[in-house]
Amino acid sequence: MSNPPIDQARVWDDLMALAAITDPDRPYTRRSFSPRFLEGREWLRRRFEAAGLKVRMDAGANLIGRMDGTGQDARVIVLGSHSDTVPSGGRFDGPAGIIAGLEVVRALQAAGYRPRHAIEIVDFLAEEPSEYGVSCVGSRAMAGALDDKLLAFTGPGGEQLADAVQRVGGDPNKLADARRCDIAGFLELHIEQGAVLQNRNIDLGLVTGIVGITRLEVVFDGSADHAGTTPMDSRRDAALAAAQLTLFVAERARQFARRGQGHFVATTGVLDIRPNATNVVPGQARMVFDIRAEDAALIGEFTAALDAESRSIAERMNVERSRYAVLSSTPHTPCDAGLRDLLARGASALGYSTMPLASGAGHDTAFVARIAPAAMLFVPCRDGKSHALEEWAEPGALAAGAATLYEAVRLLDEPRS
Amino acid sequence: MSNPPIDQARVWDDLMALAAITDPDRPYTRRSFSPRFLEGREWLRRRFEAAGLKVRMDAGANLIGRMDGTGQDARVIVLGSHSDTVPSGGRFDGPAGIIAGLEVVRALQAAGYRPRHAIEIVDFLAEEPSEYGVSCVGSRAMAGALDDKLLAFTGPGGEQLADAVQRVGGDPNKLADARRCDIAGFLELHIEQGAVLQNRNIDLGLVTGIVGITRLEVVFDGSADHAGTTPMDSRRDAALAAAQLTLFVAERARQFARRGQGHFVATTGVLDIRPNATNVVPGQARMVFDIRAEDAALIGEFTAALDAESRSIAERMNVERSRYAVLSSTPHTPCDAGLRDLLARGASALGYSTMPLASGAGHDTAFVARIAPAAMLFVPCRDGKSHALEEWAEPGALAAGAATLYEAVRLLDEPRS
Repeated sequence: MSNPPIDQARVWDDLMALAAITDPDRPYTRRSFSPRFLEGREWLRRRFEAAGLKVRMDAGANLIGRMDGTGQDARVIVLGSHSDTVPSGGRFDGPAGIIAGLEVVRALQAAGYRPRHAIEIVDFLAEEPSEYGVSCVGSRAMAGALDDKLLAFTGPGGEQLADAVQRVGGDPNKLADARRCDIAGFLELHIEQGAVLQNRNIDLGLVTGIVGITRLEVVFDGSADHAGTTPMDSRRDAALAAAQLTLFVAERARQFARRGQGHFVATTGVLDIRPNATNVVPGQARMVFDIRAEDAALIGEFTAALDAESRSIAERMNVERSRYAVLSSTPHTPCDAGLRDLLARGASALGYSTMPLASGAGHDTAFVARIAPAAMLFVPCRDGKSHALEEWAEPGALAAGAATLYEAVRLLDEPRS
Repeated sequence: MSNPPIDQARVWDDLMALAAITDPDRPYTRRSFSPRFLEGREWLRRRFEAAGLKVRMDAGANLIGRMDGTGQDARVIVLGSHSDTVPSGGRFDGPAGIIAGLEVVRALQAAGYRPRHAIEIVDFLAEEPSEYGVSCVGSRAMAGALDDKLLAFTGPGGEQLADAVQRVGGDPNKLADARRCDIAGFLELHIEQGAVLQNRNIDLGLVTGIVGITRLEVVFDGSADHAGTTPMDSRRDAALAAAQLTLFVAERARQFARRGQGHFVATTGVLDIRPNATNVVPGQARMVFDIRAEDAALIGEFTAALDAESRSIAERMNVERSRYAVLSSTPHTPCDAGLRDLLARGASALGYSTMPLASGAGHDTAFVARIAPAAMLFVPCRDGKSHALEEWAEPGALAAGAATLYEAVRLLDEPRS
C-alpha cells in the first residue's frame, strides 16, 4: 500500500485562508449566524466547487459538498465538522475536520480512485453554543433532534432560532428533509483540545466516546436600585446571588471530579449582569452552566444540587429565581466500534501510533451517532489549548490525520465480505 | 408675594416628550454620546429656542440656553442638570432639573420680570457614568477638572473620551474656554432618588451636601480554556475570582454602613466576563466598583481593603490581577449655605415644607461647586426608585420644586444689600 496523496501544504493553506475570515479585532471569530460566518461559508462553497463537488444546503442549513459514487452502494460516506467558532476562538476547532474531509476527496481524485459510495463533506451549522443558547444545531437537524422547543429559543434582538436557521439558508419548515437514514459511516477529524496525545507523544487519538453535556440557565431577578442612595440592607442585588451560585458550582464540581467516576467538569461560562452600569445595583443576573460527565448519574445528581442551591440562594439574598431551565442535555455517546477499527487499521498501515481517548468536548459526531455509525479521530494540539488564539496543531499532524481518514474511507468503501 | 406663573402641565409635557426619545426596546435610555442622546439634545435645543433663549455648545459639549440680563450684574445665574440616562433608567433623573430651569425662565418672561443677571440653562454632558468609565464629563469641564488622563479613557471601539466629546460638538483642545468664573450661583433641581421625603411627607429637600464617590476598576486575567476538556484543578477561572471579590465588597460595605459614620455604600455595578461563552472557562473578568461615603476616611480604608483582598484572591485563584485603577474620586461636597438659605426662603414663602438632606447620589453640582456657589433642591420620588423604569415624581411635586427655584432665582437676582 502506497501513502495516500494527501497534500500537507494544501490542507494548511486552506485552514489559514479560512482562519483569515475573522472579526478583525478579535481573532479568530466566526460566530454562527453572523455575516462573518456566511463569508466563511461562501469561501468553503468555492473550495468545494473547485474540488468538483456538488454543493447544496440542507433544511438544517448544513453546507454539503458531494462527490458522487459509482452507484454500487446507495449509502453515503460522510466526513465533516463545523466552520463556526467561539468568540476569540482558534483556527482548528471545527475547520480541521472539514478541510481534512475535503482533502480526502481531493486525494481520492488525485489517486484516480472512484468510490462505490458517494462521499459528502459537511459543514454542520452552529456546532459551538450559539447566541440562541443551543449548540450542534446542524447535526441535531440531521439527526432529527432539532425540535420545536429548541427552534423557539431566542437570540440577539429576540430573533428565534427557527428564523435564524432560515436566514442562513435552511428551511425550518422542512427539517424532516434534513434527517438522514442513508449514511454508511460518519468520520470526524478534530483537534484533541486536551494535552494527552502531546504528553504521551502519540500521533493520533481513537475516540472511545463523547462525554454527556447538560446546559442549564438560571436567572436571578432583584431590583435595579440607585447605587448611591439605596442602603446596603435594603438591596436586592442579583449579582451577589449570581456570585454565590458561581462559587458553589465550581466547588461542587471539584468534589465530583475527585470521585473517580470518570471525567467531570462544570463551568459558569456565561454571566450577564443587568443593567451593568457603575451606579446601579444589579437588578438581574443570567448564568449559563455547562456540566459534563461520562457518568449520566453524576449529571443528574449535580443538577439536583444546583437546583436546590439556587433556590436557597434566592431566598437568602431576597431575589427571585425567575428562571431555571435545562437548555440542552446530550447523553454520553460511544463511538462506533467498527469505524474505530477502520481508523485503527488505517493509522497502523501508515505507521502512526494511536491510543483510545474519551472526548471531554461535545461534537457533531454525538448527534450523527444517533442515526448512523460514527467515529472520531483526534489530532494532537499544543498544550491542549483550544477556544483561544493560541490553539495550534502541527501541519504534519493534520496531514497524518487526513491520511488516516483517507485510509479509513477506502476501507469503508470496500464491498462487505 | 404672588405665586410664580409656573405652568405645571407644560413642565410635565416637556418631561414626557423628552422621555419619549428613548431606545424603544429598553425605556428609558438615552446614553450619553449615543445617537439617541443627540436626538434628545436636538429636541432640547428647539425647546430652548422656542423660549427665546440663545443656544450654544461650550467646549465641554454642554448645551446651554441663555436669557440675557439687563446688564446690572455681569455674572450669570445658572440652572440645570443633565439629559443623559443610565441604561434602562427613568424619566426624571436629570431632565427634571433642565426642564424646571427652562420653566423658571419661561415663568420670569410670563411675569414680565427682567433679571439683572443673565440666566443660563445647562444640559451638562454625560453626568451618568458613561461607556468611557467617567461621569459628570460636562460639569468637570466647566470646573476645569476634565484633565488629559480622563480624556484618554477609552470607550466602545477604543474611542477616546476626547474624541467622543469632539464628536458630540465639544472642543477638547479648547477646554479652558469651558471653565467658568462668572457664575453668581448655580441651582440644580433633582429627584431625591431615596424615600426620605416621601416617608416623612415633606415637600422638598434642601441638600446639605453631596456624598464623596470613588470608582475603581479591577481586572482579573486567567486562562480561557475549553470548558469540556480542562480539569477543574487546572483552571484559571477569572469569573471565580470576580465572584469572590464581588461578595467581599458587599459584605465589607455592610460592615462599614453599620459603623454610624454617615452614609456608606459600595456596589459592584459592572461585571464583564470574557469570552462569556457557554463552553469556555472565563479568561477575563472586569469589575467596576462604586464606593460612596460622607466620611472621606471610610473611602480610604475601604479601597485599601479592596486592594489587599483583590491581590489575595488573585493569588489564591491562580489568576493575575492585571488592573487595579481608581477611575475617579470625587470628595464630599457641601452645598453653599447662602444659596440653601435662598431656597429655604423661597419654599417657605410658597408654603412648602422642607428638610435638610444629604445626597447619596453624585450630581453635576459637586463639580460646579468647585468654581461657584452651588446648591440643590430635592423633589420627592415614589418609593425612592430611580435608575429604573418605575422612577416617578408627581407633576405637582415637580411644579412645587420649579416654583421654589423661581423664588430663589428672584432672590439671588436682587442687588446685594
